[in-house]
Amino acid sequence: MTETLTAPALAALSALLGDRLVTSQADRTQHGRNETYYPDAPPDAVAYPETTEDVAQIIRICAQHDCPVVAVGAATSLEGQHLPVHGGISLDMNRMNRVLDLRPQDLNVTVQPGLTRMGLNAHLRDTGLFFPIDPGADASLGGMTATRASGTTAVRYGTMRDNVLALEAVMADGTIIRTGTQARKSSTGYDLTHLLVGSEGTLGIITELTLRLHGLPESTLAAICRFDSVADAVNCVILTIQSGLPMARIELLDHMMVRGFNQYAAAGLPEKPHLFLEFHGTAAGTAEQAQGFRDIADEFGAQGWQQATSTEERTALWAMRHKAHYASAALGKGKHIWPTDVCVPISQLAEAVVQAQNDAVALGLTSTIVGHVGDGNFHAGISVDPDDADEMARAEKFTRALAETALRLGGTVSGEHGVGLGKQKYMAAEHGPALDWMRRIKMAFDPKNILNPGKMLPQDH
Amino acid sequence: MTETLTAPALAALSALLGDRLVTSQADRTQHGRNETYYPDAPPDAVAYPETTEDVAQIIRICAQHDCPVVAVGAATSLEGQHLPVHGGISLDMNRMNRVLDLRPQDLNVTVQPGLTRMGLNAHLRDTGLFFPIDPGADASLGGMTATRASGTTAVRYGTMRDNVLALEAVMADGTIIRTGTQARKSSTGYDLTHLLVGSEGTLGIITELTLRLHGLPESTLAAICRFDSVADAVNCVILTIQSGLPMARIELLDHMMVRGFNQYAAAGLPEKPHLFLEFHGTAAGTAEQAQGFRDIADEFGAQGWQQATSTEERTALWAMRHKAHYASAALGKGKHIWPTDVCVPISQLAEAVVQAQNDAVALGLTSTIVGHVGDGNFHAGISVDPDDADEMARAEKFTRALAETALRLGGTVSGEHGVGLGKQKYMAAEHGPALDWMRRIKMAFDPKNILNPGKMLPQDH
Repeated sequence: MTETLTAPALAALSALLGDRLVTSQADRTQHGRNETYYPDAPPDAVAYPETTEDVAQIIRICAQHDCPVVAVGAATSLEGQHLPVHGGISLDMNRMNRVLDLRPQDLNVTVQPGLTRMGLNAHLRDTGLFFPIDPGADASLGGMTATRASGTTAVRYGTMRDNVLALEAVMADGTIIRTGTQARKSSTGYDLTHLLVGSEGTLGIITELTLRLHGLPESTLAAICRFDSVADAVNCVILTIQSGLPMARIELLDHMMVRGFNQYAAAGLPEKPHLFLEFHGTAAGTAEQAQGFRDIADEFGAQGWQQATSTEERTALWAMRHKAHYASAALGKGKHIWPTDVCVPISQLAEAVVQAQNDAVALGLTSTIVGHVGDGNFHAGISVDPDDADEMARAEKFTRALAETALRLGGTVSGEHGVGLGKQKYMAAEHGPALDWMRRIKMAFDPKNILNPGKMLPQDH
Repeated sequence: MTETLTAPALAALSALLGDRLVTSQADRTQHGRNETYYPDAPPDAVAYPETTEDVAQIIRICAQHDCPVVAVGAATSLEGQHLPVHGGISLDMNRMNRVLDLRPQDLNVTVQPGLTRMGLNAHLRDTGLFFPIDPGADASLGGMTATRASGTTAVRYGTMRDNVLALEAVMADGTIIRTGTQARKSSTGYDLTHLLVGSEGTLGIITELTLRLHGLPESTLAAICRFDSVADAVNCVILTIQSGLPMARIELLDHMMVRGFNQYAAAGLPEKPHLFLEFHGTAAGTAEQAQGFRDIADEFGAQGWQQATSTEERTALWAMRHKAHYASAALGKGKHIWPTDVCVPISQLAEAVVQAQNDAVALGLTSTIVGHVGDGNFHAGISVDPDDADEMARAEKFTRALAETALRLGGTVSGEHGVGLGKQKYMAAEHGPALDWMRRIKMAFDPKNILNPGKMLPQDH
């Protein structure tokens, strides 16, 4: 396998795409960047497909010339998934961003992969429907599918895994396939849809996706409260989930994260662990749910309850949560943030969070914790100076300790950020002999390893 | 590939299993039977594993001797999935029926595949939790996983796809793998869990499964009502689902099905389409949901509303629904029932159901329709005499027309019964070029084709 774009491949792609194949330094540099701490990795060229047929033809040329192809949407992935570390082509999907077929009567929509989640929700305005998955960033829906994204509402609406009904994809030989149907369920055939969801562009390039939509709740109630300890906050969450209360959002912010908000936005909150909550339903239903939650929270000494139902007040209440990244950066005095995430069984959440806090202190690191704790999923945001080798080494040590904690407690080394470059080293520990069966799939689907080479599956095997 | 058990394989299996390898005519005959219209297909021998290691050793011997292996649990599959049509070994999983690890605090449980859903729910009594998936029969949980089963509660709780968190499986070379973790979500690696769910024993043998559990609803409200036409009933369902009402069950019974109940159990119901409903939640919540439903149903001229909340009254109200199979048989004057199912986008449901009713009349067949209509999924139960070649041919014609209707309307040829033997002929029409990528997986995972050969993937390719 060559790992660069050869002259004949470049000629063939240029003939196909004309000025939609770009080799300028500026475009290449831009497509080699990422939002976190990974070194730049520019592609040899950037292709801008506009149709599925474009993608298929590009892949056929790349297959013929053994040229790597790395799809990219909004480039908001957090483990370097879109970085062309072996060179080749960045397949920029942003021009394929149309809504193809909105079927409100079936509560689903078919879109192109470059459309972002906010773009979709803007399109849905006035339909009474919305697409709830909210990973924070305005990610592309293709990228969210490829990385099995989730976010703050997964506790209620599930992750991308639960909300992708059907896909169109171009496979490594240029074949265009369709997986799934418009029906809500099926028991025919191997589940290729869910094999492609979370495959990080290593098995096929998603060119269309059909998503489940949900009715906008009649009423939304937002609330916050605080606890004396992380254990109290988390044990409140555990009992809430066990009690079956249909939480729409339930987010933990540890005292360091709150300190970040105070420094970033003068939030004036007591520097204690907080829960940020949202309830969806009828007016009577959300009030009943909120009361049910408060009854549980009281047992754990919750204080400072504030709630809101109007859009303005809710937005004000939750505004801070959405600025977690900047607040973490403020806390780190402008350093870079190294984000990492794990997911554990909910019964193990308090132990995992406390362990992470202790590890950060022991390693002399500044780290915030924000968690989609209803799922057992939480993030650490470590302040790092990429030029400080010692600090980077301690951050790496912290990340490894967190991954090992998650595995020891029966969890996974990533609940939503994915594998990309950063979590490959834990794949064998998490998956054991199953990893070989993942490799069989990769070999069967992409024998030349042209689709996002160097991602997901570790090569040291 | 040989398609029988050779003497050396038999010797090796006997040495391993002793009297847990049975070749008696009685056992073989029993393991070659099914509940529907498929001809008997007895295995050459029946193996009774008691541990995962037993399964692994059996598979290793079978791999060495090219001997087919077909796992079977409660043998309630409806498309012949457990029939050893190429001979070899029936792997009877019924002795592997223990609850291995119940974790109420995490709302999940790990069990062996031979445990049935009712067995699990009996074990969960007094925990406040239950496993909601209800396909009707008391199927084994391994079989339900392997066939991606669903049933009456899927509209609220999802299908097996949504409720299997993790698996242990023995692969075609005897390797034991684990997929998934105890965490509620993960974004690491290819989704082998969901590749095995619904693979009908053709990719690996499930030896352990971790299932999500749900809190028993505080209050359950059951109800029935009837409509003047199937279109009215189905349009009521469509609007209900679109409105976001959290239905726990919503079942359509057509006038023929009601006639069956009247003949079988003197139900005394008007022979019109009925909906059977269930609402789960708090007492106030279910009352609110039921009223919300009635407001919609009134628009479609619903009549004869009856509701109940006590266990006894609810059981009485729903008793009929659970006897649909016998009532269909009563209607057919003791003939066999040929069951078939499809699933369509919910907006297409009325058209699909009416088309099916008309096709049955046009073909001179007696058929009932019962549907998990909240999912767009419905069953036809055709009365057939397997010795009447003409009637069997007309039933085949009906089934094909129904499958083609489902595909024309954007649906799938099976929502929950699966492919097995009966739906292979529609796989190419439903999946198109994707079928070749399913074959690649089968080839990569089971190159000798020893795992349930002759199922799922059509051979005429």
